Amino acid sequence: MTATVYILNGPNLNLLGTREPEIYGATTLAEIEAAAKDRAEKLNLAIEFRQTNHEGVLIDWTQESGAKAAGLILNPGAYTHTSIALHDALKALAIPKIELHLSNIHAREPFRRTSFASPAVDGILCGFGAMGYVLALDAMRRLIDKRA
Amino acid sequence: MTATVYILNGPNLNLLGTREPEIYGATTLAEIEAAAKDRAEKLNLAIEFRQTNHEGVLIDWTQESGAKAAGLILNPGAYTHTSIALHDALKALAIPKIELHLSNIHAREPFRRTSFASPAVDGILCGFGAMGYVLALDAMRRLIDKRA
Amino acid sequence: MTATVYILNGPNLNLLGTREPEIYGATTLAEIEAAAKDRAEKLNLAIEFRQTNHEGVLIDWTQESGAKAAGLILNPGAYTHTSIALHDALKALAIPKIELHLSNIHAREPFRRTSFASPAVDGILCGFGAMGYVLALDAMRRLIDKRA
Amino acid sequence: MTATVYILNGPNLNLLGTREPEIYGATTLAEIEAAAKDRAEKLNLAIEFRQTNHEGVLIDWTQESGAKAAGLILNPGAYTHTSIALHDALKALAIPKIELHLSNIHAREPFRRTSFASPAVDGILCGFGAMGYVLALDAMRRLIDKRA
Amino acid sequence: MTATVYILNGPNLNLLGTREPEIYGATTLAEIEAAAKDRAEKLNLAIEFRQTNHEGVLIDWTQESGAKAAGLILNPGAYTHTSIALHDALKALAIPKIELHLSNIHAREPFRRTSFASPAVDGILCGFGAMGYVLALDAMRRLIDKRA
Amino acid sequence: MTATVYILNGPNLNLLGTREPEIYGATTLAEIEAAAKDRAEKLNLAIEFRQTNHEGVLIDWTQESGAKAAGLILNPGAYTHTSIALHDALKALAIPKIELHLSNIHAREPFRRTSFASPAVDGILCGFGAMGYVLALDAMRRLIDKRA
Amino acid sequence: MTATVYILNGPNLNLLGTREPEIYGATTLAEIEAAAKDRAEKLNLAIEFRQTNHEGVLIDWTQESGAKAAGLILNPGAYTHTSIALHDALKALAIPKIELHLSNIHAREPFRRTSFASPAVDGILCGFGAMGYVLALDAMRRLIDKRA
Amino acid sequence: MTATVYILNGPNLNLLGTREPEIYGATTLAEIEAAAKDRAEKLNLAIEFRQTNHEGVLIDWTQESGAKAAGLILNPGAYTHTSIALHDALKALAIPKIELHLSNIHAREPFRRTSFASPAVDGILCGFGAMGYVLALDAMRRLIDKRA
Amino acid sequence: MTATVYILNGPNLNLLGTREPEIYGATTLAEIEAAAKDRAEKLNLAIEFRQTNHEGVLIDWTQESGAKAAGLILNPGAYTHTSIALHDALKALAIPKIELHLSNIHAREPFRRTSFASPAVDGILCGFGAMGYVLALDAMRRLIDKRA
Amino acid sequence: MTATVYILNGPNLNLLGTREPEIYGATTLAEIEAAAKDRAEKLNLAIEFRQTNHEGVLIDWTQESGAKAAGLILNPGAYTHTSIALHDALKALAIPKIELHLSNIHAREPFRRTSFASPAVDGILCGFGAMGYVLALDAMRRLIDKRA
Amino acid sequence: MTATVYILNGPNLNLLGTREPEIYGATTLAEIEAAAKDRAEKLNLAIEFRQTNHEGVLIDWTQESGAKAAGLILNPGAYTHTSIALHDALKALAIPKIELHLSNIHAREPFRRTSFASPAVDGILCGFGAMGYVLALDAMRRLIDKRA
Amino acid sequence: MTATVYILNGPNLNLLGTREPEIYGATTLAEIEAAAKDRAEKLNLAIEFRQTNHEGVLIDWTQESGAKAAGLILNPGAYTHTSIALHDALKALAIPKIELHLSNIHAREPFRRTSFASPAVDGILCGFGAMGYVLALDAMRRLIDKRA
Repeated sequence: MTATVYILNGPNLNLLGTREPEIYGATTLAEIEAAAKDRAEKLNLAIEFRQTNHEGVLIDWTQESGAKAAGLILNPGAYTHTSIALHDALKALAIPKIELHLSNIHAREPFRRTSFASPAVDGILCGFGAMGYVLALDAMRRLIDKRA
Repeated sequence: MTATVYILNGPNLNLLGTREPEIYGATTLAEIEAAAKDRAEKLNLAIEFRQTNHEGVLIDWTQESGAKAAGLILNPGAYTHTSIALHDALKALAIPKIELHLSNIHAREPFRRTSFASPAVDGILCGFGAMGYVLALDAMRRLIDKRA
Repeated sequence: MTATVYILNGPNLNLLGTREPEIYGATTLAEIEAAAKDRAEKLNLAIEFRQTNHEGVLIDWTQESGAKAAGLILNPGAYTHTSIALHDALKALAIPKIELHLSNIHAREPFRRTSFASPAVDGILCGFGAMGYVLALDAMRRLIDKRA
Repeated sequence: MTATVYILNGPNLNLLGTREPEIYGATTLAEIEAAAKDRAEKLNLAIEFRQTNHEGVLIDWTQESGAKAAGLILNPGAYTHTSIALHDALKALAIPKIELHLSNIHAREPFRRTSFASPAVDGILCGFGAMGYVLALDAMRRLIDKRA
Repeated sequence: MTATVYILNGPNLNLLGTREPEIYGATTLAEIEAAAKDRAEKLNLAIEFRQTNHEGVLIDWTQESGAKAAGLILNPGAYTHTSIALHDALKALAIPKIELHLSNIHAREPFRRTSFASPAVDGILCGFGAMGYVLALDAMRRLIDKRA
Repeated sequence: MTATVYILNGPNLNLLGTREPEIYGATTLAEIEAAAKDRAEKLNLAIEFRQTNHEGVLIDWTQESGAKAAGLILNPGAYTHTSIALHDALKALAIPKIELHLSNIHAREPFRRTSFASPAVDGILCGFGAMGYVLALDAMRRLIDKRA
Repeated sequence: MTATVYILNGPNLNLLGTREPEIYGATTLAEIEAAAKDRAEKLNLAIEFRQTNHEGVLIDWTQESGAKAAGLILNPGAYTHTSIALHDALKALAIPKIELHLSNIHAREPFRRTSFASPAVDGILCGFGAMGYVLALDAMRRLIDKRA
Repeated sequence: MTATVYILNGPNLNLLGTREPEIYGATTLAEIEAAAKDRAEKLNLAIEFRQTNHEGVLIDWTQESGAKAAGLILNPGAYTHTSIALHDALKALAIPKIELHLSNIHAREPFRRTSFASPAVDGILCGFGAMGYVLALDAMRRLIDKRA
Repeated sequence: MTATVYILNGPNLNLLGTREPEIYGATTLAEIEAAAKDRAEKLNLAIEFRQTNHEGVLIDWTQESGAKAAGLILNPGAYTHTSIALHDALKALAIPKIELHLSNIHAREPFRRTSFASPAVDGILCGFGAMGYVLALDAMRRLIDKRA
Repeated sequence: MTATVYILNGPNLNLLGTREPEIYGATTLAEIEAAAKDRAEKLNLAIEFRQTNHEGVLIDWTQESGAKAAGLILNPGAYTHTSIALHDALKALAIPKIELHLSNIHAREPFRRTSFASPAVDGILCGFGAMGYVLALDAMRRLIDKRA
Repeated sequence: MTATVYILNGPNLNLLGTREPEIYGATTLAEIEAAAKDRAEKLNLAIEFRQTNHEGVLIDWTQESGAKAAGLILNPGAYTHTSIALHDALKALAIPKIELHLSNIHAREPFRRTSFASPAVDGILCGFGAMGYVLALDAMRRLIDKRA
Repeated sequence: MTATVYILNGPNLNLLGTREPEIYGATTLAEIEAAAKDRAEKLNLAIEFRQTNHEGVLIDWTQESGAKAAGLILNPGAYTHTSIALHDALKALAIPKIELHLSNIHAREPFRRTSFASPAVDGILCGFGAMGYVLALDAMRRLIDKRA
């Protein structure tokens, strides 16, 4: 059976393509979703791709992924730096977890260098732009296989 | 007439019993609610017992308790450490307020030692596990009686 | 055509008039809305006046203002001090943006002196109480005219 | 046989009832002892109730409680914030331990928000005034029973 | 009788129009004074408009305004961030006080985010450029009327 | 009747005259006591002059002075910088209180620049050496007279 | 010959008696000068008593005192906390130097607890109000005699 | 022509497989090199795979890669956290650069959360163990293609 | 004549052997004393071996050692990290002084990495367990001989 | 035509030769001026050499140099470490600017290691004593030539 | 068979005897090596005694000691305070490890009070000068025997 | 005889002319060496001009300069900010020492504002670009002459 991977995107990622393109690139979130779906198929994975501006919704979905998915790829947006609640939701999750950032958060404002998500995930990818989602799926495929 | 006490629970507390049981214990939130209801009856109190992962909902309910309840018992979960908005909602509340934590937050990560809720409540209980809810109801009964 | 200005209010501002009146004054949010509407008409502006306790909703509305309004006046309440997500939403916004606080946040607790909104707006007004909304509309009228 | 609980009080608590009553209340330490004895009897517990201004004595007694008591309720007063030696004495203690403060130490000066005792105890109660001792005894009764 | 408002400007503001125009704009201080005088007349206010590079002179004038003026609008320039002496002079002043900055000081170097003036004034305006002086006069008119 | 002033000296002050004379001078504590007694007589004051190395004893004596003396002159030695318990004892004291240091504690190691005693006393004298005790008695005489 | 003592007063001290009297008392600077002159005569000292709001003037006078006076009593007002230039002027001075504060600067805002003057003077007096000037003169008399 | 990618490994990575395997895994550096070579061939890339314990050598090689390679994959080991010199060498490099860590450095000691390399690279991968090298090569292939 | 060495032990060291043996080892303080006495005899030294939980007593004894002993070996326990008073007592001591810790205090909690004793002693030994006392005596023998 | 270079000296530099000669040397400011004039002539430069203790005057002169001079050599004395106003005046200046210190400010107290002037000048010289002025003139000659 | 102990010395220790003798003593490194060899023979140990100024070499040798020696005595010199890479090499080492400093690093500049080596070794000796090497060998003998 | 001056250059300075020319200029290190040699000849100095990326080599050479040279001019590159070992090597050096930086390190990233070299040298030059080497030689000539 095809395993499902949740790909969850946090605040303002719905603006991709228009928002500060010199930082985030010109690709839209819909294009990223399409590329991810494409890759997932090749890896024999289904994806559930969502975006929200709400911290609470992100926590609800993270919890949900524990019940319904084989792995979680999470781009927490700005909640990366402030949400201990999300940290706790990730800690409670037994499936493989990858944190993902489009931009290199370490080359920007100091307040973007702290991540509450990082200590609670397996692996982290940042700075690869839209291509990062594809890399994360490749990594997830192997993490799932390892546990199988 | 029976006074009502709001018992509000923050993010990830719906996972109780499965989430990191070595920290939070094996009791589920439903079992805690049952025990609290039981105790409340003996104290001639009604309870309104809720959980949410959303900071905004927690604020809505905290405001609501000011209109509908005689007291508030609040386990803010991880919002304890980050929510100034919740601090403000508590400050605006005239009824007795108790902050509650299942685990001893002072024996864990440093970022759990700061509470924005604490300066805005009457009393604080932490580290007593599920039993803390019962103790909090006992304390609330007396706080309500004192004001009566 | 009459330009529209979004006036968005964050957590606990629905309590205005009852909440700590020695800090926030006795005017209610409805009265502020009425005064703002009044002023806006004189300035040939329409206003969309809203309040929410939810950080996510505040971000949704901030994004929405980018599509539907000629300017944004934002009183982020306590999210001022904690929301990097709101900072990002403001950064992504091309219309004129004014940050507004009823009280003088610099004369209160230390944690109220940090604003994540400020670096992302055009101008800031604080400490003028309810009158601040009227001043902000005056300022907004000119900011809009300048860009026209 | 009736189990004994040590209730140890740190510096300046002998002044209760006269010292800054707007913070600590008007009840004297003798009245608290009487109320505690009363409650203890109902719970089938004996209490050993003491006060000292000396950090060293507090450590001696804490060590002694390990040999002679079934539980320790400790109000370390100002040594809460400065005594690593007391922290170590508590760490070495195998019986249940409850830390107690009359006032809400989180709503006062910043230097009162750090507790070296907290990471070394089971549960913490603060802000409940004299009533806190009674609640602590209730909690202790259950902690002792659990271990029995 | 026409009330007088002191408008005091701190160090380097005499350079306006030539100094870093990408930050401070191209308007000169003389042009700002003219615009302010204009607005003041419409508001039935007289203004006393001055500039100095000396912290001590700024304190002298601030004290003087207490005796001779109905309100003070102060742009302390860089003394904003370093002068506790100015803070004290403002504290001692019973008339309405408005702090004003041409640029958005929160979007610049970290050392510009601290203001010793802010905790001692009634209201603060920043980021509105030369237009801020007009807005400040509007606000001052109302603050004076309120006290009358 | 002659009023009594407690003059309490903290840790290591018994070593005066031998300990680091380049910092503390060559006068012994006995000589200081003699000079203080002498001056006190001229001021119609009795003195109770004591030294201890124990924080707890210093607190006991501070409390005792509240019952038996008209004023307290305290040289807390190194407990100045670490004792919140002593701070609390001073806070609870209604008589005039003067803090005294032989050396200029602000011209030494950084850890000597913090005083927990200072916020709880009326006046502070430091750097005057043995002469400081005489000055403190002069000051105390007036403080007592003012209250009489 | 009668030795002269400079008594220099920093910013806002000219406002004494009217400025925040709950902190600084109701005595005016002129009254303090009169009392100081009175005391000085008894001690066979002449005084040069001045006040300025200018840091530069305070430094000029401090340098001048080195040439013309036998001792310096300095109340640097708010420059206490910010002026390294004054620190340097004091360091360069060979005559006895006393720092003086009317209020207890350690019982106020945190930024008043740092003094750049203190490490460069002989002795420090604070919290004694207007009486402090008289005590400082007494102390200065002895410091001058010691050097003679 | 086959492009070459430099894969440089910093201090202690030669110990892989024996050093703290619970953190770094049981795979040796030789095995990683073999897997990397394997992958590189599939991607039509040659690799130059090296390890050193010397900061200076790491800088020499980083500079060398600028002249001889089409891309750099760097695991700086502990120099990540301390080497500004390496940061500068990376800044001076025009080819694509990927930073790589075997373990999740954000889930370990606080001093491992600071990276001087990160602000100077294109993308970062951490926590994927030996598999990270393969992912990094995949990413590098695309980064090189993009620039071609 | 046989020189005497004071070996003073601070708070909770009387619990050795039972307290957290994974940190402090299974040897009791009596066994350490016996081993020390044994070694001392071989080195032609007498020892005075004591333990106390009281900071004040530790200071009394430290002062006493200055009069009666040829050297001091001090294990200040937790007072290491908090006692400036002990620091001062050590500073005043002219005999050789060795600071000793059973455990490696640098491999534990951050608050154990600060020692107020260290800057005031000649040499420091930590992490050698009970064997450390024997090493300290060896070192002391030579320090005494050097001064002889 | 001979270009003019302003050489401005800040607080307490008038005391050179007498003030702490172990730090600042025995040369007087007049001697430095003579040596500078001498050197300037050889470089075909005129100099305007001044000293003031007033921060405001230093700013006035710095502004003036922008209109009248080809270059500015500034020894800001202690205002180096505290004056953001001077920083701003320097920022507004288009001519070449050199910051100069007689002593090595990095080998002294920590508060002398921060310079607000440094980020706003072209080059910095410190620790060369009186000779630094000559070196600064040499450097200035070249900086002026480069721009010519 | 005779066990070998590596004694490794970090940067600038080759200068011993000439470099700042008031801190490091007059003994040369060669003399220390001789004394160590002497002592080692008595303890039936061979020593490998080396010095380097290179962090990388120190790491190479530390790794080498793991393969060839029964114990490591390390004086990391200034790398103590900055080298996480050395920390990692020590962590990876299974043999007994002793950290050694000639001077009392806690009685010097603040930046010498942090040691990255300390948390990774068994025991630490500092302040005993050249004698410390002999004490370290004595300690090492026993640590080796314990493991045998 | 012609005195020799060592001119040592740290990491990445071999890249000059190509590396970030907007910061470091377009001059190569070879051109700087040529200019320095030229100037040295005029000053009757020989120079030994070297560059290395290795901290250890920089320390070796610094030590070597003490034996073979009359003065040291050091551009430590990024080791400026991190190398306490280099600080120690400089401290041990009796000849005149000048620290040099091409760019104004105070106008860049915060981590470039700390220099461990500065407190150990005689004079510092920064921001003068390639010309700084010539100025440093001029200064060195005089420093050598002064000692002669």
